[in-house]
Amino acid sequence: MNYKNTAREIFNAALQAVLPAQLINESVRFDGQLLRIQDHEYLIPAQSRIFIFGSGKASVAMANVLYQILSDRIAGGMVLASNPGRDIGPIRVLESSHPVPTQKTLDATNQLIVAMSELNNNDFFVYLLSGGSSSIVEKPILPIALDDFQQTTSLLLRSGARIDEMNVVRKHLSMVKGGRLGQLSRGTGLVLVLSDVIGDDLSTIGSALLYKDDSTYQDVVTILNKYNLMHDVPANVLAVINQGVTRQIPETPKTTNSNIAHHMIGNNYTALVRAQEKANQLGLQAHIMTSRLDGEAREAAKAIIAIGKEIHLSGNPFSPPVCLIFGGETTVTVRGNGQGGRNQELCLSALNAFRAMPYITVLSAGTDGIDGQSDAAGTVVDCETFRKAKELQLNIDGYLSANDSYNFFKKTNDLIMTGATGTNVGDVTLMIIHE
Amino acid sequence: MNYKNTAREIFNAALQAVLPAQLINESVRFDGQLLRIQDHEYLIPAQSRIFIFGSGKASVAMANVLYQILSDRIAGGMVLASNPGRDIGPIRVLESSHPVPTQKTLDATNQLIVAMSELNNNDFFVYLLSGGSSSIVEKPILPIALDDFQQTTSLLLRSGARIDEMNVVRKHLSMVKGGRLGQLSRGTGLVLVLSDVIGDDLSTIGSALLYKDDSTYQDVVTILNKYNLMHDVPANVLAVINQGVTRQIPETPKTTNSNIAHHMIGNNYTALVRAQEKANQLGLQAHIMTSRLDGEAREAAKAIIAIGKEIHLSGNPFSPPVCLIFGGETTVTVRGNGQGGRNQELCLSALNAFRAMPYITVLSAGTDGIDGQSDAAGTVVDCETFRKAKELQLNIDGYLSANDSYNFFKKTNDLIMTGATGTNVGDVTLMIIHE
Repeated sequence: MNYKNTAREIFNAALQAVLPAQLINESVRFDGQLLRIQDHEYLIPAQSRIFIFGSGKASVAMANVLYQILSDRIAGGMVLASNPGRDIGPIRVLESSHPVPTQKTLDATNQLIVAMSELNNNDFFVYLLSGGSSSIVEKPILPIALDDFQQTTSLLLRSGARIDEMNVVRKHLSMVKGGRLGQLSRGTGLVLVLSDVIGDDLSTIGSALLYKDDSTYQDVVTILNKYNLMHDVPANVLAVINQGVTRQIPETPKTTNSNIAHHMIGNNYTALVRAQEKANQLGLQAHIMTSRLDGEAREAAKAIIAIGKEIHLSGNPFSPPVCLIFGGETTVTVRGNGQGGRNQELCLSALNAFRAMPYITVLSAGTDGIDGQSDAAGTVVDCETFRKAKELQLNIDGYLSANDSYNFFKKTNDLIMTGATGTNVGDVTLMIIHE
Repeated sequence: MNYKNTAREIFNAALQAVLPAQLINESVRFDGQLLRIQDHEYLIPAQSRIFIFGSGKASVAMANVLYQILSDRIAGGMVLASNPGRDIGPIRVLESSHPVPTQKTLDATNQLIVAMSELNNNDFFVYLLSGGSSSIVEKPILPIALDDFQQTTSLLLRSGARIDEMNVVRKHLSMVKGGRLGQLSRGTGLVLVLSDVIGDDLSTIGSALLYKDDSTYQDVVTILNKYNLMHDVPANVLAVINQGVTRQIPETPKTTNSNIAHHMIGNNYTALVRAQEKANQLGLQAHIMTSRLDGEAREAAKAIIAIGKEIHLSGNPFSPPVCLIFGGETTVTVRGNGQGGRNQELCLSALNAFRAMPYITVLSAGTDGIDGQSDAAGTVVDCETFRKAKELQLNIDGYLSANDSYNFFKKTNDLIMTGATGTNVGDVTLMIIHE
C-alpha cells in the first residue's frame, strides 16, 4: 500500500469539505421566507430587502453560491476582495489589497461603509467574513493617514509587541475594526464566518469587523508605554488615542450590535473531521489530535514524530496502523534565503527525525493552497523520500538551515500542488503509522 | 480536587520506579549459582569469581543493592562515580569527573582497565552502566593528551557538528569507548543498563563502553572534512586518525564481545508505565503519548498544550478527565542569564499558552532531580499559578526571554524539590485535563 497516496487522498477530502461553496451549501437553506443557517432559523418577511456584504479571501466564492440560493431576493450588496472578479448579479465586487492595506483598501472600505449605512430597520443582510479581511477592510480614524497607520504597525512590530497587542492598538485607530463596522448598519445581520484563526476567536477573525471589542484606549496607552513608543508614534495617532482616552471619540463597542448574529460555518476542525471520516473510509483508524497546533514548525514536527515513534514501538497511545490528524497553523522563523512555507518545513524537520524509518508517512499542507514563499500547498514524506534525497545527495540539515524546504521537495518530487483554493482554515498535518 | 497534588503523586510514583535500588531488586535474582536477570538465566559455577564493575551517576546505588544480592560470592570490582562514597565490601569506589573528563577520570579509568584486564576465562562480571559514563570513563589513545581531546571536542562543538558526529570522532580517539572496554576482558560479562538516552540506543548510552561501534576512522575523516577541521585538530589527534585509517591501530569493534550480554533494566518508558498505573490507581484514565519527546522545551510545550485544549473542547482524541504522559528529554537554547532547566521552561511556556484556563494542570520534572541550572527537579503549573503570577506582577514573557523559569516558579511556590535522586532516565511530563 502506498501511504503517500493515502495521505494525499485524505488531505484532498479535507480540503473539499472546507471549500466556500461546499460550506455555504451545507450551512444555508432558504425556502423564500425562512432562512436556515445550521440549526438556526430566521424569518425574512417578503417585503424585506436582503443585501450581501463580504470581505476576505473566500468572500467572492461564498457570495456566488449564496446568490444562487437567495437569487432574486437579493436587493444588492458589496464584496471586497484582493483578487476580484465580475459583479455577482446585483452584488458589486470591489478590489482591495492584501496583505497590506493601500489606498485601494480605503476607497473600497469607504464604499462599503456608505452601502451598509444606507440600510434601514427592515433590511436584512448577510456578511460573508473570511481571512484576509484585516487588510482588505480598513479605514483609519481621521486625521490618521494610511502612512501614520503603517508606521505605527511597523514600530510595534520592531519593538517585539505580540500580535494581540498590535491588534488592540489597530482596532482603536480604525473606523471599522473591533465591531465598529457592525455599529454602522441598522439592518438585521447574519455574519457567516470562515475561520482562519486558531481557536476561532470572533474578536480576532477579520479584526472583528461586526463583533465587539473588550480592550480600551487605556489599554492602548499601556501597550505603547510598555514598548516605550508614546513619543515615537505619529502625532495624528497620538491625537486620536488622547481623544479616545478622554472620551471625545467613542470606545470600540463592548457588546455586539444586538441585530447581528455570528455563525461559524467552517473552521480547521471541519477539515479535520472530514479527514478522519475519509481515513476511516480507507480502512484506517484515525484520531483528531488537535485543531490548535502552533509554535515553530520544525519543533512541532519533533513532538509529532515523538508520538509516532512510540506508536510504532509500544502501541501507545494507539495501535498501528493509525492516522493521527493535527490542524492549526505553525510559524517559521526565517533565517535563510530559501523558498518554502511552514508545512514544507514541518515535513522536512519530520523527515530529519524519522529518516529512513519505513513505518511513518507525514503530510502537511495549507488549505489555502499556498504554503509560504512557494507555489505548493505542502508536501508528503516517507522513507522513500529519504532514500531519494540520499541518492540525490540532498543535505536535510542544509536545506533546513536555509529555510529552503520547497527546493528540497521539488527535487524529491513530493510537493502537493493544488493552486490557490479560495479557502483558508489553516493547515492539516497527517501522520500515518503503518507496518 | 487539587490536580497539582495528583500530578505530584504520579511523578513521585514514576520516580520511585526508576530508582537504582528498585530496578536492581526487580530485575535480579540469585540463588547461589543461578543468576536471573529479567527473563534470562545465567549459571555461575561455584568456583567462578564474580566481579562488579560500573560507572555513571547510578552506579554506586546499583552496586550497593547488587552487593546485598550476591554478597559473599563477590570477589572484587570497581565502580567509578563523580560523587563517590565508601567502598562497598570488596568493591572499590573510585572518584572520577563529570560532566567533563579530567586527570581524575584518566587515573580512575586506568585502574578500571587494569582490573578488567586481569579477569580470566572462568571469571564472571556484572557491569553497571548508567548516564554520565561518557565523561566518567575516558582514556584517549596515546599520544593524545587530555588537552588534545578537549580541544577536538570544542572545535566540533563550535563548528556545529551534531552530537552523533561528535561521538563518532570521540569513540575513535578513545581506548575505552565504542566497545573497546569490552574487548579488554576475557571474563563473561553482563551489562545492566540504566538508560538516560532517548531511544535506548546501546551504541550511545555511556558511549557504548562494552557494546560495538558501526562507524569507522574513515567516517571520522569525512566528518572533520565536512566541518573543515582537518588542519585544525591537534597533531596527536591527526596522527591517531591516520594510523586508524591505515590500519596501524585497530578499528573499534564491529561486533560486541560474544562473552558480553546487555540488559536494559530501566529507562524512560519504565517511569511512564508506572505513572500510568499510578494515575489509574488515583481514578484517572491515562495514556502514554511518547517516551521520545525532544526538541526545544518551550516549543514542545506548545504542541502538548494544543492537544490538551482539543481534549477540553471536543473530547478528541480522549475524553476528559484524562492524564497524558510524555517522556524524553527536551533542550533549551540559552539566550538569557536566568536560572532554570528544560522542565521548568517547558512548564513556563505551557503556562503562557493556557494561561488562566482552569482545566489544565501540567507537571514536568527530571528523574535525576536536577533540572538544568537549579536545585529543583521541575515544577507543576495550573490556573492558580497564573493567578498568583498576575498578583505578584510576574511577566511570563520576560521570564521566558531571560531563561529564568526557576525564579518565576520559586515565587509562585510551585517548584518540585527532590534533591539529587541518584538515577536518571530523562524527564517525565504530565498533562491532566480535568473539569
